[in-house]
Amino acid sequence: MTERLLDNINSPQDLKKLKLEQLNQLAREIRQLIKETVSKNGGHLASNLGVIELTIALHYVFDFAADRLVWDVGHQCYVHKILTGRGKDFSKLRQPGGLSGFPNPAESKYDQFSVGHAGTSVATAVGLSLGAQIKKTSEKVVALVGDASIVNGLSFEGLNNMSLLKRQMLIVFNDNFMAIDKTKGAFAEYLTRFRVSRPYEVFRRRTQRMVRQLPFVGDALEDTLHRVKDGLKTTLHQDLGRFEQLGIPTFGPIDGHDVISLIKLLEQIKDVDHPVLLHVLTEKGRGFTPAREDPCTFHSPQPFKVDGETASFSDKSDKSFTRAFADSLTEIMKRDKTVMALTAAMPDGTGLAQVREVFPDRVFDVGIAESAAVDIAAGMAKVGLKPVVCIYSTFLQRSFDQIFQEVSLQNLPVIFCMDRAGMVGGDGAVHHGFCDTSLLRTLVNLEVMAPCCEAELRSSLEYAVNCGRPVAIRYPRDRVAHEDELPDNYACPVFEKGRAHVLKSGSDATILAYGAPVIAGLTAAKELAKEGLDVAVISARFAKPLDGDLLRDIFTNGTGPIITVEDHTLIGGFGSAVLEFAADEQLDARRITRLGLADEFVGVDSRAGQLRTIGIDAQSIGRQIRQLLQKK
Amino acid sequence: MTERLLDNINSPQDLKKLKLEQLNQLAREIRQLIKETVSKNGGHLASNLGVIELTIALHYVFDFAADRLVWDVGHQCYVHKILTGRGKDFSKLRQPGGLSGFPNPAESKYDQFSVGHAGTSVATAVGLSLGAQIKKTSEKVVALVGDASIVNGLSFEGLNNMSLLKRQMLIVFNDNFMAIDKTKGAFAEYLTRFRVSRPYEVFRRRTQRMVRQLPFVGDALEDTLHRVKDGLKTTLHQDLGRFEQLGIPTFGPIDGHDVISLIKLLEQIKDVDHPVLLHVLTEKGRGFTPAREDPCTFHSPQPFKVDGETASFSDKSDKSFTRAFADSLTEIMKRDKTVMALTAAMPDGTGLAQVREVFPDRVFDVGIAESAAVDIAAGMAKVGLKPVVCIYSTFLQRSFDQIFQEVSLQNLPVIFCMDRAGMVGGDGAVHHGFCDTSLLRTLVNLEVMAPCCEAELRSSLEYAVNCGRPVAIRYPRDRVAHEDELPDNYACPVFEKGRAHVLKSGSDATILAYGAPVIAGLTAAKELAKEGLDVAVISARFAKPLDGDLLRDIFTNGTGPIITVEDHTLIGGFGSAVLEFAADEQLDARRITRLGLADEFVGVDSRAGQLRTIGIDAQSIGRQIRQLLQKK
Repeated sequence: MTERLLDNINSPQDLKKLKLEQLNQLAREIRQLIKETVSKNGGHLASNLGVIELTIALHYVFDFAADRLVWDVGHQCYVHKILTGRGKDFSKLRQPGGLSGFPNPAESKYDQFSVGHAGTSVATAVGLSLGAQIKKTSEKVVALVGDASIVNGLSFEGLNNMSLLKRQMLIVFNDNFMAIDKTKGAFAEYLTRFRVSRPYEVFRRRTQRMVRQLPFVGDALEDTLHRVKDGLKTTLHQDLGRFEQLGIPTFGPIDGHDVISLIKLLEQIKDVDHPVLLHVLTEKGRGFTPAREDPCTFHSPQPFKVDGETASFSDKSDKSFTRAFADSLTEIMKRDKTVMALTAAMPDGTGLAQVREVFPDRVFDVGIAESAAVDIAAGMAKVGLKPVVCIYSTFLQRSFDQIFQEVSLQNLPVIFCMDRAGMVGGDGAVHHGFCDTSLLRTLVNLEVMAPCCEAELRSSLEYAVNCGRPVAIRYPRDRVAHEDELPDNYACPVFEKGRAHVLKSGSDATILAYGAPVIAGLTAAKELAKEGLDVAVISARFAKPLDGDLLRDIFTNGTGPIITVEDHTLIGGFGSAVLEFAADEQLDARRITRLGLADEFVGVDSRAGQLRTIGIDAQSIGRQIRQLLQKK
Repeated sequence: MTERLLDNINSPQDLKKLKLEQLNQLAREIRQLIKETVSKNGGHLASNLGVIELTIALHYVFDFAADRLVWDVGHQCYVHKILTGRGKDFSKLRQPGGLSGFPNPAESKYDQFSVGHAGTSVATAVGLSLGAQIKKTSEKVVALVGDASIVNGLSFEGLNNMSLLKRQMLIVFNDNFMAIDKTKGAFAEYLTRFRVSRPYEVFRRRTQRMVRQLPFVGDALEDTLHRVKDGLKTTLHQDLGRFEQLGIPTFGPIDGHDVISLIKLLEQIKDVDHPVLLHVLTEKGRGFTPAREDPCTFHSPQPFKVDGETASFSDKSDKSFTRAFADSLTEIMKRDKTVMALTAAMPDGTGLAQVREVFPDRVFDVGIAESAAVDIAAGMAKVGLKPVVCIYSTFLQRSFDQIFQEVSLQNLPVIFCMDRAGMVGGDGAVHHGFCDTSLLRTLVNLEVMAPCCEAELRSSLEYAVNCGRPVAIRYPRDRVAHEDELPDNYACPVFEKGRAHVLKSGSDATILAYGAPVIAGLTAAKELAKEGLDVAVISARFAKPLDGDLLRDIFTNGTGPIITVEDHTLIGGFGSAVLEFAADEQLDARRITRLGLADEFVGVDSRAGQLRTIGIDAQSIGRQIRQLLQKK
């Protein structure tokens, strides 16, 4: 193997030493590295393959040791990591102790914000620019935002507030022709019309020809800027009217894989003393046929095997909660024609893509617009439908106010299904669904539940669509329990309002677990039984309303320690609900030990590793109970 | 006094019996009624005076017993209430047991949603329309949204999702030339440019002339629709490009005070079988000179005295927390040039209007864009400034995800000042700041505080701008404590991290209050002292981190009951934090009684009445302690 250019790139300064003609080779090397690493570690693939030339160009032109580059969502920052001194650690992407899959200021001074939620880049960049304006400093600010994020309401609020700026700020609008699934909504349709009317190839040739004719840096800046503002603008500028109407001069679209043209154009506009937007066309999965042809599957794949230009996934025999949810919802929708499903740009991740195959007219994807998803669902519930809103726990935080006003306050029967509740594994702190129960418990009328296994998931969903009240259901990014993890002859009684289920009785201690950790509790109880300890295991099912009768019975008639377990923060979560109940009933809460997430961030690791870290895996639960019983 | 037309309007059906020529008289009568009632009861004035003709026209043309009218924010629904059978109860607007100042389905079938938060109407209307589309029902759906709400991200998400609709939906865009304060941002500037280029008067004359020439209902509908789509559209249509680009055909602008033209135009477009937008120009405060000239003061005034065309407010000698905050912040900003302040369209309500008079360049109003406000502040903090984000508690809920990702996760020193925390009085359930502590407590790095009096407010703010960490401070819509309500020789020690302040010691019981309820606790203790009871009163100051040393001392060395008091939900709030502490430390929490908001909505009343209802006024606290001591 010949020496790679990449081996000598330890910082953007090294990149700047390369000749323009070498950059395409560098792009190829980076493409290869990302492909290899993600195929081994899993991670975000298609989007990163799409921004290789763009990221090279940005680092070639700007100096992000002083200038500030803000990533939207951030999962497309791999090239940026490789170019900013993290190429050597890239093999440990998303591994315990390794690199985060998102920007992380703790990793590098080149990262501004840890981000994994969409639509934030424009507003934070406005803040950075406004700060520089106030402090009269001269660093450049660049926000990179994709066509999926731009439709988020927060993006619009950010764009609308760029009028606060009387200085430089550049928005690079990375338009890759499709979002995580497929960009939804009127703005996407507008982009599509606009693209169709001027095909990509025509653009590519035209912008390339034109930008190649531009003077390079060194020519009189005045003259250049004049050309940018008049000549270039009127030629390149295709009236992305929406941005122009917001007072933001728009350049492009330009071919985002033509690194030399990109550099020339960025050189021209980097010093413009007011906010501008550059519209860049890129291709998701560029340079890797499977990802290019199926960017959904290769958005954030599990590890896969590459064989030339084909890729294959190992056969996963374990059924996920996501899959179990999709199966259950499909069953229910077959029987009840009033059940509808909504997602905010995550049809694959939530399982709704599978449901949509059966019910194409009853599954709605509103794009990355979590707030609107909830309000649209509230409207549908108002006219008698049963909307099921499927949004990851961490993203449903964005809709809290709509869940309060349009659902709780109106008492409308909207059902929230929160996948990725609890620890999420490789995505780390930006994505944990760590606080949904604390938030949603505060809302009047809302019932808050967590099933522990596939049968409970099915039953909770049945309950939800039939109870006529708003309901939230949480479940993790994990497999469902195997049969041998459940009690012998396990039968899952139907869900009833505020009723827990005793899976195993026992007199030495009681594990009162909320959701999936019930299974770890069962395993712990099995281990403890070998030591002669008789431990009860209860699936609490509801965090609100709690099963008061059962709790009263445990407190009054039981004697041993009570261990609450939740895959959730200990602040205001399920365990706190139990404490509140005890306080209200004047029961002695000193018997309670709460296990769950402490007040801290949990970084990149496998989900199993994270559960160990926060101490809610079977071993930790068992150890805790042994200690408590010894103390007694 | 001659008989009013209004006296015979008990439903929209009665309205439809009036001749077109009578509607202006009706508008005058309604204007008079609203002016009189709000001057007595307080409430939203300027916006309601602006939509009288528009609301009459909507009810004249549509049948909102079957059709659905969705109000954005909802505080401009007074005319709607008067026309839908609630005119006789209108004198009890915002009074205990009387009408809500917002739409409320519990009051009337004509109200779809209880709403007081902005930007929700388009998305909920999309949901209602989508529901009708699925159920194949024919009711019309109308959303009424103002120029302040349209810039909210949720509005944009709603507009973007209108592409889901293949049926009728009408957005009435009520453009009253200014929002609550003054519409901010690029979109507002765009509207302004557009208005300047075509002055209102020109519009008024042109649209009036044109619409008057239209055929009225009864003419061949085909022909009419044709005129609407071609003739009328090209003539009236002024290319509000943004909406058009989102694929929403736009009509107008039309004079919103010309009730006959409005009716004619609505008749034309009400049956259009796809979403359309009607741009209506109205004048805030129309018909009442003081409100027209100063719509900020008359946005939501306290009761005032009307004398012909002038209005005067009674001199309020009590200083509000809002005013105390503005004074303190101004002082701090004089000393520290890095402190900046941001608001989301509430400069008056948050006190920032006063601060802005001194520091016009350091106070930023981002419009109704709570999410962007937080992210802009995070960007400013990142470059070393100290942003103070001033948003009512109930509206800061909308930024929870940004507070998590851009502030807590980055550990950036953004300061949140939450006015209107707790019970808010007349605005009722849509506006109570009932859950901020439960939400914000879950976030790592964030400190969560509540000062009890003006001195503590000043000290907490001093602490916040100097601690270098993210901090949230809550205080109510209330006056600050009078000197005689505080202990003799009261001195307020400076805020220190996680330190409470013992205002009064006592051995029979301990009142551990969070924020303003401390004062009620002091009053209760004073009353109890007359009965020989010696009750301690502590200002907890922090809900996070708690004062562990003090709590340990109370639990270990104290004996009597401990009463936590908070103007906040009991679910996950301050009292729950104390329970969690006790559980972690294996202390007996049975000594604790938590006072605060139960899991229910609290309706329209005075703030004092609401505090009585939830049992945290001085009398209730005293009664509770007597009972607890008797039980012992």
